[in-house]
Amino acid sequence: MIVLHATFPIDPERMDEALDHAETLVAETNEEPGVIDYRATRDVEDEHTLRFFEQYEDAAALEHHEETDHFQAFEAALPDLLAGEPEVIQFEVSEATELEL
Amino acid sequence: MIVLHATFPIDPERMDEALDHAETLVAETNEEPGVIDYRATRDVEDEHTLRFFEQYEDAAALEHHEETDHFQAFEAALPDLLAGEPEVIQFEVSEATELEL
Repeated sequence: MIVLHATFPIDPERMDEALDHAETLVAETNEEPGVIDYRATRDVEDEHTLRFFEQYEDAAALEHHEETDHFQAFEAALPDLLAGEPEVIQFEVSEATELEL
Repeated sequence: MIVLHATFPIDPERMDEALDHAETLVAETNEEPGVIDYRATRDVEDEHTLRFFEQYEDAAALEHHEETDHFQAFEAALPDLLAGEPEVIQFEVSEATELEL
């Protein structure tokens, strides 16, 4: 399993456009093969920081995602949307457990 | 390494209180020993869903976090803040890699 944390500082003037991309990405990506969960969020401390939390069964599912139109449209738009350096961290996961609160 | 994804559907009338807890948790937890990163966010599709993304060096760091005052205050308040079932998933991570976009 693969978990990805992606962080994008967005130009406040392009936030609506970035949110449109984010909503499309969430709707489309959760339908892709091998995608366990895919979420887009805004940081509570800085609402112009978009954080994506992504969970894939394997590398093939992630590669498939990166070749989709909706991902490539977002990637192409990024240089105009960003207000700082993006960060993407990939975690190789050996085990996932749901905890009881 | 441990990554945790925690999801809390919050009662819209208690959102401000939940955000206060979230901001305290982020400020305090990022200062704890063994905490690599700790973020609180709101889902772009439902702003009343709080999502926490947490990264710990090991189980001991997570256990230490769960014994802190700020975590226990949040845990005690949760029953009054929630509008649905919370979900917490723990990932055992074998490797973390920063990707180039």
